[in-house]
Amino acid sequence: MNSVIETIQGHRSIRSFKSTPISKDQLDTIIASGIAASSSSLLQVISIIRVTDPEKRKQLAKYAGNQAYVESAAEFLVFCIDYARHYTLNEAVKPEFMELTLIGAVDAGIMAQNCLLAAESMGLGGVYIGGLRNNPKEVDALLELPKHTAMLFGMCLGVPDQDPQLKPRLPADVIVHENSYQPLDIEQVKQYDQTMHEYYASRSSNTKQQGWSEQITEKLSQESRPYIKDYLNSKGLAEK
Amino acid sequence: MNSVIETIQGHRSIRSFKSTPISKDQLDTIIASGIAASSSSLLQVISIIRVTDPEKRKQLAKYAGNQAYVESAAEFLVFCIDYARHYTLNEAVKPEFMELTLIGAVDAGIMAQNCLLAAESMGLGGVYIGGLRNNPKEVDALLELPKHTAMLFGMCLGVPDQDPQLKPRLPADVIVHENSYQPLDIEQVKQYDQTMHEYYASRSSNTKQQGWSEQITEKLSQESRPYIKDYLNSKGLAEK
Repeated sequence: MNSVIETIQGHRSIRSFKSTPISKDQLDTIIASGIAASSSSLLQVISIIRVTDPEKRKQLAKYAGNQAYVESAAEFLVFCIDYARHYTLNEAVKPEFMELTLIGAVDAGIMAQNCLLAAESMGLGGVYIGGLRNNPKEVDALLELPKHTAMLFGMCLGVPDQDPQLKPRLPADVIVHENSYQPLDIEQVKQYDQTMHEYYASRSSNTKQQGWSEQITEKLSQESRPYIKDYLNSKGLAEK
Repeated sequence: MNSVIETIQGHRSIRSFKSTPISKDQLDTIIASGIAASSSSLLQVISIIRVTDPEKRKQLAKYAGNQAYVESAAEFLVFCIDYARHYTLNEAVKPEFMELTLIGAVDAGIMAQNCLLAAESMGLGGVYIGGLRNNPKEVDALLELPKHTAMLFGMCLGVPDQDPQLKPRLPADVIVHENSYQPLDIEQVKQYDQTMHEYYASRSSNTKQQGWSEQITEKLSQESRPYIKDYLNSKGLAEK
């Protein structure tokens, strides 16, 4: 196993950070790694808002559902779909298609993962913050995003002050299908539920008594941020 | 610069492959690397369809807009948003929210980038195939995707039979904003246009006389796959 694969497979989300800052060199490397990512048709549709203002950090931590590490992490980056850039260059550009929002979301994931892995390879840690989508319009206003630009998620980065266990995942047999979609093997999910039950019961903090199926059913049988469609549409995105 | 950052920053899309296969060990490592990725609320909403059937590969190459490497690459993986998995476990699950499609697209990007980097770290190469979205319903039918599962993009992987140059990207100053969105600096784009003009004129194959602004304006002033919204809605996704 080479060090790239070790870094990738050693990922744990880090939510507790030392007060040590990230050096300018390290941050430049993290950003350059993000920018080196594949970009659909070289459109380069992602902007990153680096939030250094402590007051804005405090607001964002609140908007994300009181996640204190948004305030305390050495760096906090917000990944945005940005077609304002292209529209500024030429108003003939039509950012309103769902296709372009999909490209933005996929490319943001690709770019952000490069950033996270670059950070992890330097001994830093981080976590994705989807919770910003709890209050998209408020986050958008705070970061002064123009029309045709929408925020997607944040990322905390810093020097880890915790060493959590690896979190078990569904087995590869469930994730990978050959040539055509295969129905879910419920027995494999039951085994995984048992694994997750043991994981949650034994982990060092935030223990719970729950398997995976229960957890995802609880989450997904509620409405999932039903205002996100309106938010995107209000930015002139995902309309058609 | 450590080897993780070297791999990340050394990325070039590879579209020409040797006939050498990818070993089972290598493929298992690539998949395990994908699965190790962050997953929003641990929902694990991605399925990968590995296409080994030569007839299906030929069809997919055609659907992607006659991209021959879809047929000739050692491996071809299709990344899908999969809420059929969760719906199978419990029909109370509501996959119809835009939020859940966004999560799927971002998480597919994160997972796929882990796969690509793992492959690149082993001397393999690859390229994302967004062109599958030229014919989403046909690709969907070919892979027999159920309701609540939608294909997003493909990935070719194999032993590189080309050694392309690094493709220049927009400078970090354009991508990264501090605390609030900064208007586009047109002068920086003009310089980048010049860089891209030189790159396209000088590269070893597929030379063209174009800057970046021209290229993206040409692309984005047309309708962008206007049937993608219908496709997602037909799968019970991104409706609300």
